[in-house]
Amino acid sequence: MSAFRKSIAKCMYLAESGIRRSSSMVSPDTKPVLYSYCYSSCSWRVRIALGLKKIPYEIRPTSLVTNRANEFTTYTNEYRELNPMQQVPALQIDGQTLCDSVAIMHYLDETRPLHPLLPQDPHKRAKVREIVEIICSGIQPLQNRLVLSHLGKDKSREWAQHWISRGFRGLEKVLSLSSGKYCVGDEISMADCCLVPQVFNARRYKVSLDPYPTILQLDHSLTTNETIRASHPHSQPDCPPKLANK
Amino acid sequence: MSAFRKSIAKCMYLAESGIRRSSSMVSPDTKPVLYSYCYSSCSWRVRIALGLKKIPYEIRPTSLVTNRANEFTTYTNEYRELNPMQQVPALQIDGQTLCDSVAIMHYLDETRPLHPLLPQDPHKRAKVREIVEIICSGIQPLQNRLVLSHLGKDKSREWAQHWISRGFRGLEKVLSLSSGKYCVGDEISMADCCLVPQVFNARRYKVSLDPYPTILQLDHSLTTNETIRASHPHSQPDCPPKLANK
Repeated sequence: MSAFRKSIAKCMYLAESGIRRSSSMVSPDTKPVLYSYCYSSCSWRVRIALGLKKIPYEIRPTSLVTNRANEFTTYTNEYRELNPMQQVPALQIDGQTLCDSVAIMHYLDETRPLHPLLPQDPHKRAKVREIVEIICSGIQPLQNRLVLSHLGKDKSREWAQHWISRGFRGLEKVLSLSSGKYCVGDEISMADCCLVPQVFNARRYKVSLDPYPTILQLDHSLTTNETIRASHPHSQPDCPPKLANK
Repeated sequence: MSAFRKSIAKCMYLAESGIRRSSSMVSPDTKPVLYSYCYSSCSWRVRIALGLKKIPYEIRPTSLVTNRANEFTTYTNEYRELNPMQQVPALQIDGQTLCDSVAIMHYLDETRPLHPLLPQDPHKRAKVREIVEIICSGIQPLQNRLVLSHLGKDKSREWAQHWISRGFRGLEKVLSLSSGKYCVGDEISMADCCLVPQVFNARRYKVSLDPYPTILQLDHSLTTNETIRASHPHSQPDCPPKLANK
């Protein structure tokens, strides 16, 4: 892009973000708005994080629909403007729109230190982030809807099972050494926000969880937490009616 | 795992990490040791980060070899103990072994604030992390050697091209709005540590970069930086001799 076109693009961006900022900062008490899809792991991570940090928010269901052969993409023109990666979630907060679940969880923790999602100790923080990345870059991207749709129905389940199982073998070893009540010791963290949706996906794709007792135990403990239960796909406004509250 | 077996596993881990700690903390000036493979994007990110932060380190080349049909895995028994995910990099530092490039970059920045890899402003930090995750969870995992090896030679190049191109379309839009001299404004950050290896991979898999002028411009600027040049795969001790220093 030439310097001129880049400068124009930046002006348009600033003008647009100015509009978004003025409309979203009507009051300092304006609730954050989460663009979320009920079954998206990445949206679910942020719903858990917002819940654990006790941050009230509005949810704006953002459907994923097929608009080309073998390609899922996000639905509305408005949303395409918000997130060029065309993936959920996005969070409108403090007059800005943030994208990517891991970036959002860090932002929430850095701007709202109450109910922290990272431990104080730097080694424990590194362990939390290692677990976050094992799930968010090592497992979930290989079994997300976009990839499975690209592979086609015939191959998608076997593919998802292969990569979830491979990831869980390593994750089980890591968690068997790091975990206490939660993924890292006895403090809940962003690693736990990521684990719950990944275990849900494993079950969805019929991965046997018997070889992963630590993962199972953590998942059981986390999913009995009321805040986490409220974030479940089946408790979301865009859950298909036949599955709602099941 | 029963509570007893878990307790035994933890004892073994503590004993082992105690051994590692005592051997790696002979002197407070002990250099960090990076387990790295020259062509691994994730290792390269950490080599750039260590270079930019001016942290001296020793490198321990860790080969990736085929030991099962269609499966790459890490080489030594010693390394399997260090990283249960059996992936490079790992960094021995401050008496601990850290795994995962994103976790390591954060650890370095939090324990050694000089030459920061994250801006101070929380919105810019979120933008840096968004770009890090677009690359590290949205693009690289879909084209890493493990996945391409699983797909087989016939399909791997087309697959890599598809996912790198899809990721770069979104990344170009994000960077065209966020970048200055570097990925986010004029401060170098961990986003830049991730961009350079990803562009190298795009070229390796013959992805046309013409549609991505911002990515190309940033890559050109970054790869003329002397510190970043020193981190290049072809400057590493495990580079194949015919490519060394080319």
